[in-house]
Parts: sequence; structure tokens; C-alpha cells
Amino acid sequence: MGFSFFPFVNVLLDLCDIYPAALQLSKLRVCFGTFKIVYTLRGTSPALLYRYNRLDAEVLINKRFTSIDNAELCSKVGVPFVMGTTGGDREKLHKTVADSKVYAVISPQMGKQVVAFLAAMEIMAEQFPGSFSGYSLQVMESHQASKLDTSGTVKAVISCFQKLGVSFDLDEVQLIRDPVQQVEMVGVPEEYLLGHAFHMYHLTSPDRTVSLEFQHNVCGRSIYAEGTVDAILFLAKKVKLKAEKRIYNMIDVLREGNMR
Amino acid sequence: MGFSFFPFVNVLLDLCDIYPAALQLSKLRVCFGTFKIVYTLRGTSPALLYRYNRLDAEVLINKRFTSIDNAELCSKVGVPFVMGTTGGDREKLHKTVADSKVYAVISPQMGKQVVAFLAAMEIMAEQFPGSFSGYSLQVMESHQASKLDTSGTVKAVISCFQKLGVSFDLDEVQLIRDPVQQVEMVGVPEEYLLGHAFHMYHLTSPDRTVSLEFQHNVCGRSIYAEGTVDAILFLAKKVKLKAEKRIYNMIDVLREGNMR
Repeated sequence: MGFSFFPFVNVLLDLCDIYPAALQLSKLRVCFGTFKIVYTLRGTSPALLYRYNRLDAEVLINKRFTSIDNAELCSKVGVPFVMGTTGGDREKLHKTVADSKVYAVISPQMGKQVVAFLAAMEIMAEQFPGSFSGYSLQVMESHQASKLDTSGTVKAVISCFQKLGVSFDLDEVQLIRDPVQQVEMVGVPEEYLLGHAFHMYHLTSPDRTVSLEFQHNVCGRSIYAEGTVDAILFLAKKVKLKAEKRIYNMIDVLREGNMR
Repeated sequence: MGFSFFPFVNVLLDLCDIYPAALQLSKLRVCFGTFKIVYTLRGTSPALLYRYNRLDAEVLINKRFTSIDNAELCSKVGVPFVMGTTGGDREKLHKTVADSKVYAVISPQMGKQVVAFLAAMEIMAEQFPGSFSGYSLQVMESHQASKLDTSGTVKAVISCFQKLGVSFDLDEVQLIRDPVQQVEMVGVPEEYLLGHAFHMYHLTSPDRTVSLEFQHNVCGRSIYAEGTVDAILFLAKKVKLKAEKRIYNMIDVLREGNMR
């Protein structure tokens, strides 16, 4: 896999706690040989971005700028980018990028397999509304203690269950942030107490004879790094082919099939 | 919910161990008031079926005849029917019914929520092929000891995982048929040892940092009875509307939304 595969692709990851993912990307560099990882803690100037543009490929970790600022910078200098972000004004973000005609993959979740699971739930909710009517739901999620709010993926999955006919309020989610509970009750390996995302959804029929359970449990950040690499490969291909569509998400990356 | 809702709908259930489901349907009669349940252990003559046709609605439990024979009978006398069957020559079955232009719902699985889960897996496999490439799979299923073969639903779900890039052979499925293991390891309630269907699928990423788990666990038969009632309501509606499409499955029933 050579140089020509990665021209002009920036990666802007401003997900919470992304630094370990950056380290994972460093590891992946061993496999792919063409990433340059740049941490810009105090923001990035257009001039700097322009310089990156001359490099083979860039993984730009920019935590201080907002996603809108980053997108505006890339749009201004015409640098394609991959952005993993849950924050910001999504509509404004998309408009900024669309107006500039820059190529981009933007997604709130970079873990391909989690995106696939969520997409399946969304399709089920859309196609079979009310099919779990009367079922009760129990949701538990465990993340490193530093994450205060409920995971965005949990919120999205719950919204699917609501469409399927389940009555459930977001404040009923059981948030596990206590390391002792995480190890003993949830089964998080101790070495991942500072970086994990465990999710459990349990549905029960009104007469309690039927139950369904879904879990997606992530330790560390390698799933996000792997997904980011696939997004880079995907976007590089679209740039090379001068594809008409310019803004993509991880579902588009998934539809492309196995990238490596 | 009155008489006019159920005219001319027969239910032919020849699923394995269907009698408890029939009893569940008896219970549902209390709610709906219009079912007549007829057990025909030695087969049904066309004349008998014709007589049923004059009743409000019929639930016909016919275990001795094959699904093809039942379908031919119904087709001959023009009696719409709901058939839950995993057996027989599916192609011949569909051709027989299509040629007769009789209305029918035919499905290998009458449990709506299990059908919804399977459909979501199928959509995920079709849309995101290879997205779980390299993942390893572990499958466990527990049924009453009298069920010798692997569940059809398990086979269908595994075929989805194979499309998602997972390498797995059917003989790797862990079949639990020992009642002691079922209670102690799987967690089947003792009162359901003679009738249950528990399924667990566990996916693990190559570096073991990511895992996904899916479970669908059914005790007893009420889920099948509930699904059958919905199929009856659905089919009665189609008959009444003189719908152009005549042969349906449980996915069509699901798409119709909440039936009650």
C-alpha cells in the first residue's frame, strides 16, 4: 500500500479522550507506513494545514479547536479530512463543508462494528415500528470515570427502541462510573478502567417469557483507530476517483466492504 | 374487535411441539372472542375445511398432514391461511399457493420479535459485508432435549455473520440439551425445560479488545401464539381489502406496525 493511496487526507479527531487513539494510530503506522501524526494542542493555522497538505498523509489531532473551526480551516485551504466528533452544531458543520466542496468523512462514532450495530437497530426501528410494543427495557453503560454524560451511542440506540414501541426515559440508563463496580459487576478488565465503553440493552416481553439482549463492549481505543484508517483509505479513494459525492459518514465506509 | 375482522382465515401450525402454542391461542381467545380452535390429528378433508370456512375464524392445528398437503387443501377450497412451518419443499409450497391465488402468511418463525432481530441481522450482512472481518464467533443454543437438530434461526443468523466476514462452521455451535446444564449454565427457568429456545451469539475482535453479544431467549410458546394472532389480523385485513399481493411472510406482518 503506497504513497499514492493517501494523498491529501487529514484526520481530525476531536472525540473525547482521543490521545490513546492517536497512539494506536502510531502503532498502525508500522503497518501502513505513510501516516504522520501531529498533535496540535493550541490549534492549527491555515498555513500549517497547507503545509500538511504537502505531506503523504496526515493524522492531525486537534483538541483545542472546535470541530467547526477545524472544518472551516480545512475547507478554506481545500484539505480533505476525516473527522470523528460528537460535538458542535452538526448542521452548520455540514453546511460549511458542503459549501467548500472539500472531501470529508464526518462521524460521531469511528468504530465500524459499533456503527454497523447502530445502523442495524436504526433500520429495524424504521422498518418494524411498534414491533416491541409493551416490552420493557433495561440499559446499562460503563465508561471511564472521567466521562460524565451518557454515551451518544446509547442515546441513539434508545431512540431506536422507542420507535420499536418501548417506553423508556434517558434518565433510566444505569451509568456505571465506579471502578470497583466496573470490574466486579460489568467485567471490565482492570487495565482498561481508564478507557472503555461497555453497553448492555435488555428487552423483556410483558409476560416475561421472552428476552433479548444486545451488548457492545469496547476496551481501549484500537477500534476507533482501525475505523479511522479505513475512513482514510475510503476517502483517499474517493478523492482519487474525483467522486461526485463529497461528504461521507462511517455508514458509507461500511457499505464499501472490507477496506484492507 | 368484532366478527368482521376475522372472516375466512385459517391457521395451520405445523411447527414442532405446537400444542402448547395452541393452548396459548386458547388463552388469547379470551381476549379476542372469535377464534375457534380445532385439533385435527388425523388430517383434514377438503369438506371439513370448507365447513370451517363458514365459521368466524379458525385456528386449525394439523400435525399429521405435511405442510404441502395442508397448503394444497386450503388452495383447493380457496381458504386463506396462516402457516408456521420450517419443513417441506418451500419452493413447491409457494408455487402451490401462488397458483391457487389464495391469501396466505407463511413463515418458518412466528415470533415477531425474533423475526425482527433476524431481519436486522440480514440487512446488516447485506449492506455491510465484511465489516466484522477477522472477528471470531461463539454460538450457544439451548432447546428442550427432544429437539435434536440445530435451530433454523441459529443457522440463518450464522449465515449472516459469515457474510459479515466471520469464519464459522455450523458444527461449532454449542448445542445444550442437558437439563442440568440448561438450568445452571444457561439460566433456563425449570418450568420451561420442556419448551424453550435460548440463543447466544458472541463476537470478538482479533485483538480481543472489542466484543458484541446478541441473545434471544424464549420461554414457552406465547410469543408464537401472539405472532400468529397478529398474522391472522394482518391477513384478514388483506382479504378484506382484496390486496393484490397474496402470499406474505412475518416480515410483511412486522412492516404493518403494531396490529393491536
